Amino acid sequence: MTASNQNVEFVRTGYGKNTVKVLVIRRQGSHHCIIELKADVELTLRSRKDYLTGDNSDIIPTDTIKNTLHALAKLKGVKTIEQFSLDICHHFLTSFNHVLRASVHMEEAPWRRLRKNGVEHAHAFIHCPEAVRFCDVEQNLSGIPTVHSGVKDMKVLKTTQSGFEGFLRDRFTTLQEAKDRCFCTAVYARWRYNKIQDVDFDAAWNRVKDMIIDRFAGPYDLGEYSPSVQNTLYETQVLVLEKVREVEEIEIVMPNQHYFTIDMTKLGLMNKDEVLLPMDNPSGNITGILRRKQKAKL
Amino acid sequence: MTASNQNVEFVRTGYGKNTVKVLVIRRQGSHHCIIELKADVELTLRSRKDYLTGDNSDIIPTDTIKNTLHALAKLKGVKTIEQFSLDICHHFLTSFNHVLRASVHMEEAPWRRLRKNGVEHAHAFIHCPEAVRFCDVEQNLSGIPTVHSGVKDMKVLKTTQSGFEGFLRDRFTTLQEAKDRCFCTAVYARWRYNKIQDVDFDAAWNRVKDMIIDRFAGPYDLGEYSPSVQNTLYETQVLVLEKVREVEEIEIVMPNQHYFTIDMTKLGLMNKDEVLLPMDNPSGNITGILRRKQKAKL
Amino acid sequence: MTASNQNVEFVRTGYGKNTVKVLVIRRQGSHHCIIELKADVELTLRSRKDYLTGDNSDIIPTDTIKNTLHALAKLKGVKTIEQFSLDICHHFLTSFNHVLRASVHMEEAPWRRLRKNGVEHAHAFIHCPEAVRFCDVEQNLSGIPTVHSGVKDMKVLKTTQSGFEGFLRDRFTTLQEAKDRCFCTAVYARWRYNKIQDVDFDAAWNRVKDMIIDRFAGPYDLGEYSPSVQNTLYETQVLVLEKVREVEEIEIVMPNQHYFTIDMTKLGLMNKDEVLLPMDNPSGNITGILRRKQKAKL
Amino acid sequence: MTASNQNVEFVRTGYGKNTVKVLVIRRQGSHHCIIELKADVELTLRSRKDYLTGDNSDIIPTDTIKNTLHALAKLKGVKTIEQFSLDICHHFLTSFNHVLRASVHMEEAPWRRLRKNGVEHAHAFIHCPEAVRFCDVEQNLSGIPTVHSGVKDMKVLKTTQSGFEGFLRDRFTTLQEAKDRCFCTAVYARWRYNKIQDVDFDAAWNRVKDMIIDRFAGPYDLGEYSPSVQNTLYETQVLVLEKVREVEEIEIVMPNQHYFTIDMTKLGLMNKDEVLLPMDNPSGNITGILRRKQKAKL
Repeated sequence: MTASNQNVEFVRTGYGKNTVKVLVIRRQGSHHCIIELKADVELTLRSRKDYLTGDNSDIIPTDTIKNTLHALAKLKGVKTIEQFSLDICHHFLTSFNHVLRASVHMEEAPWRRLRKNGVEHAHAFIHCPEAVRFCDVEQNLSGIPTVHSGVKDMKVLKTTQSGFEGFLRDRFTTLQEAKDRCFCTAVYARWRYNKIQDVDFDAAWNRVKDMIIDRFAGPYDLGEYSPSVQNTLYETQVLVLEKVREVEEIEIVMPNQHYFTIDMTKLGLMNKDEVLLPMDNPSGNITGILRRKQKAKL
Repeated sequence: MTASNQNVEFVRTGYGKNTVKVLVIRRQGSHHCIIELKADVELTLRSRKDYLTGDNSDIIPTDTIKNTLHALAKLKGVKTIEQFSLDICHHFLTSFNHVLRASVHMEEAPWRRLRKNGVEHAHAFIHCPEAVRFCDVEQNLSGIPTVHSGVKDMKVLKTTQSGFEGFLRDRFTTLQEAKDRCFCTAVYARWRYNKIQDVDFDAAWNRVKDMIIDRFAGPYDLGEYSPSVQNTLYETQVLVLEKVREVEEIEIVMPNQHYFTIDMTKLGLMNKDEVLLPMDNPSGNITGILRRKQKAKL
Repeated sequence: MTASNQNVEFVRTGYGKNTVKVLVIRRQGSHHCIIELKADVELTLRSRKDYLTGDNSDIIPTDTIKNTLHALAKLKGVKTIEQFSLDICHHFLTSFNHVLRASVHMEEAPWRRLRKNGVEHAHAFIHCPEAVRFCDVEQNLSGIPTVHSGVKDMKVLKTTQSGFEGFLRDRFTTLQEAKDRCFCTAVYARWRYNKIQDVDFDAAWNRVKDMIIDRFAGPYDLGEYSPSVQNTLYETQVLVLEKVREVEEIEIVMPNQHYFTIDMTKLGLMNKDEVLLPMDNPSGNITGILRRKQKAKL
Repeated sequence: MTASNQNVEFVRTGYGKNTVKVLVIRRQGSHHCIIELKADVELTLRSRKDYLTGDNSDIIPTDTIKNTLHALAKLKGVKTIEQFSLDICHHFLTSFNHVLRASVHMEEAPWRRLRKNGVEHAHAFIHCPEAVRFCDVEQNLSGIPTVHSGVKDMKVLKTTQSGFEGFLRDRFTTLQEAKDRCFCTAVYARWRYNKIQDVDFDAAWNRVKDMIIDRFAGPYDLGEYSPSVQNTLYETQVLVLEKVREVEEIEIVMPNQHYFTIDMTKLGLMNKDEVLLPMDNPSGNITGILRRKQKAKL
C-alpha cells in the first residue's frame, strides 16, 4: 500500500473518549450539592504514525482520557461544566508536548433540588429536563480557548399571538395564510463568549435561557405577536447581544413543530381551533447566527 | 386451511388505533388552558369473522376510531385524561351493539404554564417532563369501568440516607455492605381507584405523586434512612393507601439506578464518595403491588 | 405506621436485575461462534420481611444475580437464549430454599456471520437487526417451566395485494374503501411451547419467523391478497400451529403502519399511487392469540 | 430595538423543512421497485427582511418546500437519493431568483427485496438496517453542487485479530496491553465525489461499504491483525481512495465499542476470554479525514 500512501494527505485526525459520565457530590455538612455530567473529549496529536504504521507510542489511550476526567473531577472539583471543560483542555495541552488540540463537549444532567414552600432539601433532587445545558470548549496548543454554551431541547408552546401571512406563493403552494395559530418549538441555542476569565457561566446561562423564554412568550397578560419564526428568532438574538455583554455571537435553531386545526366538517362538527393535531414530522426549521458587528476590522 | 381451523380457538382478539394525538385548547377570554394527550384505544368485537373469513362488515375502522377521539374531544371536552378515557369507552360500548370491550391507555404531555414571580402567563407553556401522567381505563359491555392512573419516568436521587446491609451471601456474591450510598430511581407507579364517580383525578394524582417524592426524600433537613429499595417502596405504598381513600391498590416499580464510587487508588488519589460513576445498566429492579385487605370476602 | 399495615396485603412482590449483558465466544480452533444477550431476571422470595421491616437477610442482591448470570454463562455455556434462561431459573430455584418463582426475559443481539460467495468468515460478524429474537421463561418452585419465544421489530412491506373494503360506516367514518393499498407492519409474535425437552429452539424460531414472512408476502411471483390485517394475522397463526407441533399457542401483533397516497390535485399533478406518505402515527394495531383447541378438557 | 440592530450582523441564515418522508413506487408490470427516503432541506435567501422586520414576502413556506419534494418525486422520479437531492437543489436555485443556497440531507430507508433460493419477490420487502445510506448535497447560486454520500450505523465485530499495545503511559493510565481483544465498532463514513455527472451512485456506495467491511474483517479464513483503530481506519481510507476514482475525500469515524473480559477470579472461576461484558459507554472514538493529494495547487 506504500505507493498509494504517497498520493493522499490528511485533512484532519482526532480521537478521544465519548460519553464519559461523572456525578460529583460536594458536601457542606449535611447540605449536599451535585453536578452530573457527560463528556466527549477529543485530542489531535502532532504525529500520525498511529494511523500510518500502527505505532501506538504517542497515543494517550482513551481509557486514560476517561481516568483523567475522573481524576480532575476529584482534584479540581466541578463548579460549572464550562470551567471543568477548560480544566480538561488545559490538562492535556500542558501535560503533554504532542497534543496539538483538545476539545470537549459536555452536557449537564438537569437535576433540580427538591423545594417545598421555599425550603430546600439538604440532599434530595428531582430530574427536570425542561432544558438541557451544554458547552463546547476547544483549545489549540499555545492558543486561547474558545467557549460556547448552549441550551437544547427546551420546548415551548403558545396558543395565540403567532401568525404567518404575506408569504410568496408558487404553483406548489397550498398553505393558507394564518392570522392566529398555535406556535410550538424546541429551542436550540448556542453562543460564544468573548472572554473566559471572570465570567459567571451559571448566571449567563440562566439569563440567556430566560430571555429566550421571555421573548417567545411576551408580556404575561397579553403576549406579543410573532409574524414569523424568523422574526422571533432574530429579536431574541438581538435581545441577548444587547443585554449580555459577554456573548459575542449566538446561533438559534427554532423548529416549527406544527399543530394543525383538525377539519371536522366531514364529521358534521365545527372546530374553531379547539382541537388540534400535533405533528411529529415534518417540521419547519429556522436557523440564524448573529454576532456583534466586527468594528475593529473596519 | 379449513381442516386446521377446527383444531384451534381464540384466546383473545382486539384491534384499535395507537398513538392518536390531540391538543385541546380551552379559551376563557384571553386566558387559555391546554391539555395534550396521546391515546391507544383497543376494541374487542363480538364476532371474529374478520379474522376467520376476511368479512369486514363488523369492523369499525381504526381510522374511524381516530376520528371519534377527535370528535369526542370537541363534543365533550377533555377535563382529565381519566374522564376522557371513560367517555371514549362509554361511546364505543353504547354506540354499537357488537363491541364487547373497550380499553384506553392515555398519556398527558407535561406542559406547565409559564409563571414568574407568582404571575401566570395567559397562553404560553413550557414542556417539563419531570413526571409523565398516564391512565388505563377498561370497560366490558354492561360492566363497570376500571380506572388506573399512573406516574412514570419520575427520576429522583438522594446523596445519602440510603444503605444496603445484612443481605444473603453465596459463592457468587462480591457486593460490599453499604451503610451510606447514593440512591437514584426512576419511579413507575400505577394505582386503581375504588370508585369512578366524584373522584377529583387531578387532586388524587398530585397527592400520590407528592407522597412518592416525600417518602423518598424524607424530612427536608435530614432526610430519612432507607435500608433497602424494597422497604422504601412498601412504606410509600402504605402511606398512599392510608391517605388517599379512593386508591384501592397500588403497584410501584423502583429500578435501582446505580452510582458507584470510583476507585482511584491506582490513580494515586483518595476518593471519599465525591466522584461517582452513573451506570446505565444493569439496574436493580424492585416491584410490588399492595392493596387494601379484602375484608368483605372473609 | 403499624396500624395501617394491618389493613393492607401484598398482591405481588418481585425483584431482580435488568439489562444484564453478556457476549459469549465459543472457539473451535480459528472458527469462533458468538451469542450476545441482554437479560432481565426477576425472583420472588417466600418472605416479605425486606419490604415490611427492612430486614435484608433473605435478599440475594441484584449484584449477585448479575454475577450469577456471568458465572452460569461460563459454567454452562449459552446454546440458545431459551436454554440459558431455563438454566438460570433452575439455578435460583435449586440453590435456594426461599425462592418461590424465577422469571427471565432475554433478547439476543442480531449478529450475523460475514458471508461472501458462500464462504463464511471465521470470526467476523455484522449487526443485522432485521428481526429481534427474544424469550420469556418462568418457573415456580416445584413447577414445570413455561417457555415463550418471540420475534419483534420485524418490519415488512408490500406494495400491492392488500385491500380493506366492506367495513362498517358511522357518522365519524371518512375512510375510503381500498381495493389495492400498500401494507406495512412491524410484526411482534410470541408463542408458547408445549414441551421444553428435546425442542430445537433455533429451528423452531426460524421456521415461525419464515412462515410469518411467507404468509405476509405470498407466492413470489404474484403475492396473495390480504382482505384485512385481521385475516392475515389469523392465517399466519393457523399456519404456524399446523406446521410447528411444539407450538401450543401464538400471539401476533400487527400494527398497520399507514402509507397514504399523496393527493396532488392542488399541485396540478395526477399521482397514481406512485408517491406515498409514510405515517409515523397514528397506526392501526391488530392483535390476536390463537391456541390449539383444548380437547383434553372437554 | 432599532439602536442595537446597528451593532449586529448576520453570520448565517437558513430555513427549510426537516424530516420530509416519501415512499416512491415504480411499477414495471407486476414487478415493483421502491425507494423510501427522509429529507431535510435548507434554503438561504438573498434578503433578511423576514428576520429583520417580519416581512414574509420572500419566504417560500416550508410547507411549499414539502409539497415541492412530493411533486418532484412524481415529476422526476427517484433513481438514487443523490440524484434526487441534486434535482431538489436545481429546482430551488432555478425556479427563484432570490435563493442563494440550497442544501439537502437525505437518508434512504433500508428496504431489501425478499429473496428465497435466488428468486426475488415481485412486490414484498423487509426492513434490514444493517447499514443506513445517506447523502448531503449543497449548491450555491451559479455554483457547482457538492455531493457527499455516506454510510452510518453499520456495526461490525470481530472476536480476534485486534490488539492495542505499546501506547503511552502516564500516572492516570491503568489500561493493560492487549495482544488479542474483541473489536466492535459502528462505522460512520462520508465521502465527497470529485464529479457529479456519470457517477453510478449505487455502485459507488456499495463498493465503499464493502471495502469497509472487507478491510475490517480481513481474509475470511484467518482475518488480518489490527494494531489500533487508527490504523484500520486509515488503511480503509487508503483502499477506498485507491480503488474508487470518483471519491476525492473520505471521512471515517470508528467508535471503539468496548467488550471487556469479565474477571471471575472472585467467583472462583477462570474466564479465558469466553464471557465478555458489552459496554454501552464510554466508548473510544477515532476519526480521520483523508483526501487525494492536491497536486494542482503545488
